[in-house]
Amino acid sequence: MDERLESILAFIKEIDKEKTIIRQTLLADGSRKETDAEHAWHLAIMAILLKDYANEEIDLLHTVEMVLMHDLIEVYAGDTYAYDEKGNATKEARELEAAKKQYSILPEDLAEKYFNLWREFEEGATPEAKFAFTLDHIQPTMLNHANNGASWLEHDVRAQQVIKRNEKTHEGSEVLWDYAFKNWIKPHIGKELKEK
Amino acid sequence: MDERLESILAFIKEIDKEKTIIRQTLLADGSRKETDAEHAWHLAIMAILLKDYANEEIDLLHTVEMVLMHDLIEVYAGDTYAYDEKGNATKEARELEAAKKQYSILPEDLAEKYFNLWREFEEGATPEAKFAFTLDHIQPTMLNHANNGASWLEHDVRAQQVIKRNEKTHEGSEVLWDYAFKNWIKPHIGKELKEK
Repeated sequence: MDERLESILAFIKEIDKEKTIIRQTLLADGSRKETDAEHAWHLAIMAILLKDYANEEIDLLHTVEMVLMHDLIEVYAGDTYAYDEKGNATKEARELEAAKKQYSILPEDLAEKYFNLWREFEEGATPEAKFAFTLDHIQPTMLNHANNGASWLEHDVRAQQVIKRNEKTHEGSEVLWDYAFKNWIKPHIGKELKEK
Repeated sequence: MDERLESILAFIKEIDKEKTIIRQTLLADGSRKETDAEHAWHLAIMAILLKDYANEEIDLLHTVEMVLMHDLIEVYAGDTYAYDEKGNATKEARELEAAKKQYSILPEDLAEKYFNLWREFEEGATPEAKFAFTLDHIQPTMLNHANNGASWLEHDVRAQQVIKRNEKTHEGSEVLWDYAFKNWIKPHIGKELKEK
């Protein structure tokens, strides 16, 4: 028996659970909320098609691997909604435990490699991690806009929360952040303020 | 206005529909059928973790791009179940039309690049296309096995259909095909034959 192959395939089967983690973001057609796996797939294609808009030169494969796997730990730690302040206070500790548990299914070298890739994403210091952060933050604003701001209304999200959460979004791509802010965020901020 | 960026973002929003295309394969936990986007995400991670098992050396980024986008045309052409003979007779023509329509949303250079990548996958001649084919074919057998053969039973799939559909699966990876056949396919063939 090839133990290495068995370990990798066990991990591949285990991460199927990511398809059952539901995010708070609606699909563009509003029919339901998207899953973590669908979100990661969307980010990976965004990285491929939008790489030239990154502020710094990026290694595309590294970025794609990062976004495909950045939410895997939510299989154990759960999805924490961006605007859930209580959840976010314990998010880091929960996710660190989850990552250790989950990546240990892999052979040691791969476990170390992909645990480090997840840490790199979380730390947000490299060009690839900054660009991944930008994509991860603008993708839900695109879908929220497609739904006329429904997700923010559902969760009573305030303009200042959106601004604060996106303080660093420009660091991966000024162009994409500018676009997202003007086209996908700003229209809904005005509307919410009026409605409250 | 940056027309290039607008075109790319229009495409990124358009492909959100891939999350609404339902495949015939159940999730590993049997709770529901997976979506095309979830399937593509799963294949991309499989490519990353299993690349050393490919028969020939592959360009990993090229393979990952291919599997992430290989089913995009199903947004227009629909998913054709592997064992739907009538659907498969018209699949090629439907999908070619769909691909032309869909990729034309992108700027011309990207439209050409990713249309060709889709054609490369469909033609199955390069090492990357062969490996992508293998992954695309073994992933549902893994999930079918996790569900004790439920998908094949639901669709009354016969052993000979499975064998025929997988004639070329070994061309991308002998190791993975061997594993999938012995561990994920063979146990259910015996069972179905007994039950019929």
